[in-house]
This record gives sequence, C-alpha cells and structure tokens, in this order.
Amino acid sequence: MFLSEFISIEDAFKIIGSNQVVNDYETISLDHAYLRALGEDAYSYHDSPPFDKSAMDGYALMSKDTFGASLNNPKYVVLIDEIGAGDLSEKEIRDGEAIKIATGAPIPKGADAVLMEEFTVLNGNNLEIHSQITPMENIAPKGEDIKREDRILSKGTLLKPAELGLIASSGHDKVKVYKKPKIKLITTGNELVKPSKRIKKAQIINSNRYTISAMIKSVGGLVEVEHCKDTKDEVKIAILKASNEYDMILTTGGTAISEGDVVVDVVKLIGEVLIHGVAIRPGKPFGFGKLENTPIFMLSGNPSAAISQFDIFVRKYIFEIQGLEYNPPILRRESKVKIPSTLGRTDYIKVSSDDEYVNYSLNKGSGIIHSMVAGNGYLIIDENNEGIKKGDVANVILFRSMELS
Amino acid sequence: MFLSEFISIEDAFKIIGSNQVVNDYETISLDHAYLRALGEDAYSYHDSPPFDKSAMDGYALMSKDTFGASLNNPKYVVLIDEIGAGDLSEKEIRDGEAIKIATGAPIPKGADAVLMEEFTVLNGNNLEIHSQITPMENIAPKGEDIKREDRILSKGTLLKPAELGLIASSGHDKVKVYKKPKIKLITTGNELVKPSKRIKKAQIINSNRYTISAMIKSVGGLVEVEHCKDTKDEVKIAILKASNEYDMILTTGGTAISEGDVVVDVVKLIGEVLIHGVAIRPGKPFGFGKLENTPIFMLSGNPSAAISQFDIFVRKYIFEIQGLEYNPPILRRESKVKIPSTLGRTDYIKVSSDDEYVNYSLNKGSGIIHSMVAGNGYLIIDENNEGIKKGDVANVILFRSMELS
Repeated sequence: MFLSEFISIEDAFKIIGSNQVVNDYETISLDHAYLRALGEDAYSYHDSPPFDKSAMDGYALMSKDTFGASLNNPKYVVLIDEIGAGDLSEKEIRDGEAIKIATGAPIPKGADAVLMEEFTVLNGNNLEIHSQITPMENIAPKGEDIKREDRILSKGTLLKPAELGLIASSGHDKVKVYKKPKIKLITTGNELVKPSKRIKKAQIINSNRYTISAMIKSVGGLVEVEHCKDTKDEVKIAILKASNEYDMILTTGGTAISEGDVVVDVVKLIGEVLIHGVAIRPGKPFGFGKLENTPIFMLSGNPSAAISQFDIFVRKYIFEIQGLEYNPPILRRESKVKIPSTLGRTDYIKVSSDDEYVNYSLNKGSGIIHSMVAGNGYLIIDENNEGIKKGDVANVILFRSMELS
Repeated sequence: MFLSEFISIEDAFKIIGSNQVVNDYETISLDHAYLRALGEDAYSYHDSPPFDKSAMDGYALMSKDTFGASLNNPKYVVLIDEIGAGDLSEKEIRDGEAIKIATGAPIPKGADAVLMEEFTVLNGNNLEIHSQITPMENIAPKGEDIKREDRILSKGTLLKPAELGLIASSGHDKVKVYKKPKIKLITTGNELVKPSKRIKKAQIINSNRYTISAMIKSVGGLVEVEHCKDTKDEVKIAILKASNEYDMILTTGGTAISEGDVVVDVVKLIGEVLIHGVAIRPGKPFGFGKLENTPIFMLSGNPSAAISQFDIFVRKYIFEIQGLEYNPPILRRESKVKIPSTLGRTDYIKVSSDDEYVNYSLNKGSGIIHSMVAGNGYLIIDENNEGIKKGDVANVILFRSMELS
C-alpha cells in the first residue's frame, strides 16, 4: 500500500456520507429520554405560565394603591383572602384590598401586581405598605414563556436536561425519538487474549474490545462484542450473523494488505468494500463497506489507529444514524511545537491544547497505548500542508466537543 | 429575605466542601467500568509491548544485510520461515537470512530490523531488497510503552475509552472503582402535576422531575424520584426514609421563607440546616443540610433557579462523592453585551459564547423555561463587581466542561 493508492479523506467522507442510514423511531417515556434525539418537531399543549402567576411570595393588589408609599409614608389595604401554591381564590380584588399569594399561584381577578412580603407589615387584616410598585410588577404573565401550539423543539434535537423539562412543561409525558443504534463490534486476531496477569509470548491483550465498546457507548450506541480468530470462515459467519441483527458493524484487525488480514477479504466476498485505505495518519488501513444495507466499518487492529479511525469516520456516522447532527467546532490555536507532515496526507495529531495554544504533541507512533490517555484534542494538518511550524495557527478539534452532549 | 441575610457563595462553597462525603469502593468487570472513577492506583502486570514486535508487515532480518541496497543495486537474502500475528518462530536469523513477519508478531532471534514488504520482490525463497534500513527500524521494543509494575493510572481517574484500553493491556479484567452515588430526588409542591394535555387552573407541570433527574444522570448518579405534597408530615416521612437508603438527597421547592415552604422547616426539625439563602442570582433560595451523615441539597421549585443551583453547588458534590475532581476551566471571553449586577451578589448569567466573544445573554428571569435550552455557558459576575460593560473581558464556564467526560 503506497500513499498514492489511498483515497483522500474528503473522498472517504463523501463515500461514507452517501451511504449513511438513519434509524427508525420509537415512542418512549420521558423518564428514559435523556440523550435521545427527538424524532419529530415538538409542540406545546399549554401556555407557559398557564395563567398570570405570582413571581414572589407577597400580596396581590392594585398597584395604584401603593403609589407614593414609603417607610415614612405607609399606605394601607385590607387582606381579604389567601392563595397558596396550587390554590385559587374566587374573590375579586377591589380598591383598598389585597390577597396574600404564594410564588407560582394564579393572580386573583382585579389585581395587577404583587407586593413583596418584605415591604409590608401585617396587623390582623390590615396590611401596611412601605414601598410602591408598578403595574405587572412581580407577575409572570400567561404565555410569557411559551404559547399553546408553539413549536418548542425541532426534530433531531438532543434531549438534555433542560429540553426534557421543556417537553414536560409542554404537556408531554412520552416522546418520539430515534432508536438507538444496535452495534456489533467484532474484534479479530489469533494473537489476542483476554486481560490476564500471565500471557504467553506472542499473545497480545485485546484492548480494542474495551476501548471501542466505550467509544460506542460515548455516542449513544448499544454495543455487543464478539471475538474471532483470523480465519475467513469464522469472520464470515460472525459478520453475516451480525448484518441481520444489528444496525451497524465495526471490526478491528484484518485491514492491512497482507496474508492473514481477512476482514476486508471477507467483506469483498459477501458484500461490498467501498473504501480500503485512506491517506490519513494515523489510521491508513481503514475500510468501509456494506452488506445489503448494513454498514461495516473496518478499523485497524492497532489500538491507537483504531481510536483515530473511530474519531474521524465512525462518530459522525453514529450521531447521524440516530438523527443527530455532528459538527464539533474547529478551533484556531497557535502551536508551540513543530509538527512535520507529508503532502497528500491528512494528519490527526493528538495534542494537548489550552484556550490559546497547542502546547505539545503526543504523536509517538500509532502503537503507543500510554499516550492515548493524554491530550485533549486533535490538531489537523490537511493534505495540502507539509506541516505546522512553531507559531503557526492550526486547526484543533477538542475530544470533548466530539462527544454526545 | 434581604440580600444582607444571605451568605456569600464562597462561604457556601466552604460549608458544603467541609461536609463532603465520599463513597465506598466496589470491584467490577472492566466491561462495565466506562465513566467510573478508579478507586486505587493501577499498576501494570506486563511490559507493553510484551516483546520486541514488528510494527509492519515485512521481513525480519539483519539491517546490515540491507546496507547500500536500492532499486538499481538490490541486495539478496534467503527466506527461512514465516511468523503470523500470534505465532512464534523458533528459528534464529543469521547473515543473509530473513523471516517473513506480520504486524505485531515477535521479532525472531538474530534480527534487528523489519523491512517493509513494499521494498522487496520475492522469487521463491529469494528476497530481493530495494531499500536499506537502520537497526531497530520498524521494531517496537519490549516495554517501550509500559514497563511491568509501572503505575499506569492514579486513583480518582475517570475511566474513559483509552483508560479502559490501558487497564486491559496492563492485564486487568476487573477494576476497583468508587460506587456510584444513589440519589433520591424529592420534588415538592401541591400545585405540581404530571405532564398532560389538560391541566386545571392553578396546576403546574412538574418539570423538575425530568430536568434534575437528567442532570443527576449527566454526572454519573443513580436517581430515584418521589413527589410529595407541601405538608410537613409527607415531606418528613419522605426525607427520613431517603436518608436511610440513599447517599444523597435532593429536593425541589419549599426553600423560600413563607408559610407552605416546608422543606427547610422539616430539615431543621429532623436534622441540621447549614445553609439557607445564598447571595447568588438566580437561585438565592438554596438550602443545604445534613441528616446524620446524609447530605441534603434543597433546590428552589423554580425550574431555572433549580438548574443554576444544581450547576453551582450540586455537580461538584456528585463528582467528589464518587472520587472525581471537579474543575471546569474558567475561560476569558470579551463580552459584546452589557450585564448589570449588584455588589455583594454573585451572578451566574446564562450566555451564548463562542471561542472569542460572549455574544448574548439569556438572562430573562429565573422562571423562563424556554431560555433554558439556549446558551452554552455561564458568565460569572463576582460579588465585588457591579456588572459587565460591553468590551469587558469576563469569566465564562462552558456547560460542556461541567459534564462527566
């Protein structure tokens, strides 16, 4: 595989994008809708607030009865009723009258303002007023926030805490959302074993199982894992079975061009390979294909390369399969380090960046597990660029901005 | 409640901080450890790589046998064996010999480099070499990444995908983590009803149930919700029961000083109220207390105020109860808008900010549900500041940076 044989990252994005599938919908309880994507526009059944309501604990009255009032020149009204939260008063306020009212309670007829408790003294039913207020003061008017039949949220919105509160307030206790993607992760490799204190020479612990599973969870996918030996038969059976039962398949290993790298060969045999090899670093040996309509992402067996490939190609797909847009902001940061690159190849260099600078690079080769846990973003060097010099302003995507939130 | 009666935000942080509890540990499968906090330092059982391994598909040989080789001046060696991934070769390479080797396979004895397949032509067992390589080229040496008994991660580390991969590679299939906090959310209010198309006048839909539950989930808590009427008996029974069964209690409603606001009164009766009222906006009527050793956070019934109180006081506590540090970065952003404030009060103003500017404020009163879903961070105006002028550089915390990730 020479660089000239790889397709560009832009072409890879196009091919994957034109094969994007989107999941069906389901209606679920609002209690379980956190971090799901709204499957239709949501409208309100109610005005919010549903009535003119008090924004304070105090006294509902006619504001004109307070005009000119001060500590030295108090005014007086008579208390005729009391309204707790959740209560109503049938009484109508007239000149010189007030009704005690709790925060959130409906304003009684005749009143046009609420005077805060702090500015009063109550003697029996006589209320002494020490401050003047204006009409509508301390009243949240009906429909101020939301009007009945307003569209409150659009299809595709990620349901975070405030969005759930908004939907609830609008009268919905159920919500139509995109189904979560069911994803099969098939790790391959004869040399791979489970984590253990003792391993034989030539064996390698299968860390992709944990890393890639967690990455799938981090973007809202439901994951099941299976491990296969590097034989065509075993890989073929696993992929065929998964293609019938899952929305997407991810594999690790078997993507380089050499004997024993069977995943790409098997997908060629039973489906279509649309991408094999992209001019990126790290992560060149990346494959993408289809089995009927089931997409399959073939990641490298190398842990660090597999992480980059997931970040570059798979995250966006998993966002979009569940109806969510994926657009992490590209930040501009001055680099304190020199990072060489090669024309014709796009680099995703793991870096540590703060709010102003790229401070250092973690680019120590794609096999270094230890460096994976450091850094907070990718510095991207596009294919028309031979590298970044000290002092250059570079494009940076923060890991955090690539997550579901 | 006048401003002078409230304690400062700094004092509130101190009181809550000095009452921080920390959960116990449990040992769980690595498969379920995503977003858990490591309960002890983790050490490696293995070198990584566990042996000198090939970083390429190619031919293991003595680098000196390639010296001077080029397309026009090829050198020749004889192939004596082949090593697939997960295999071993017992053979030892001597002068003029090579062994075909897969990426990740152990380097055979005698070899000191791996020549990439691309730079060779194989005729039977005769390998024609078109490029020279240096000693150790394309070899990842044993222990390069991690040495046996190295500390790989510290106690309190949040286990994200790469951390899980690192722990697996180090030989652990189980991991000791802090227990997730079990949190009881008690919403109070006679006026509150479940989301429905039709509600009676004076009723309000209980949106806090959904908003605060999701916020608890967003920081790793396990939440159960119960709703109570505003009666001392009902609230007392709910809080007492929860204090025996949960690690923390959150309430909404009943924190202002007026009749019918029973939560604070009940906690005074059956436990200790350590904070009632903080000089912040929004969210002044915030309470914090203890029942034996169970912390109770008393949030406002007002949805938007409750969200701010959670963000300001509760998030940090839930991070720390499960062994995690909480330190969202404070960014410096130039404000395009004027935001007035009052001396002696700390404001958390919801704003929309980009990588350079605070573009607008969403500070439309604490009751506006609709505005809750907009904005991406808080602009903080401290108590010694009368407000932000256009062009001032202000402190901003992004919502995203307050999350568990």
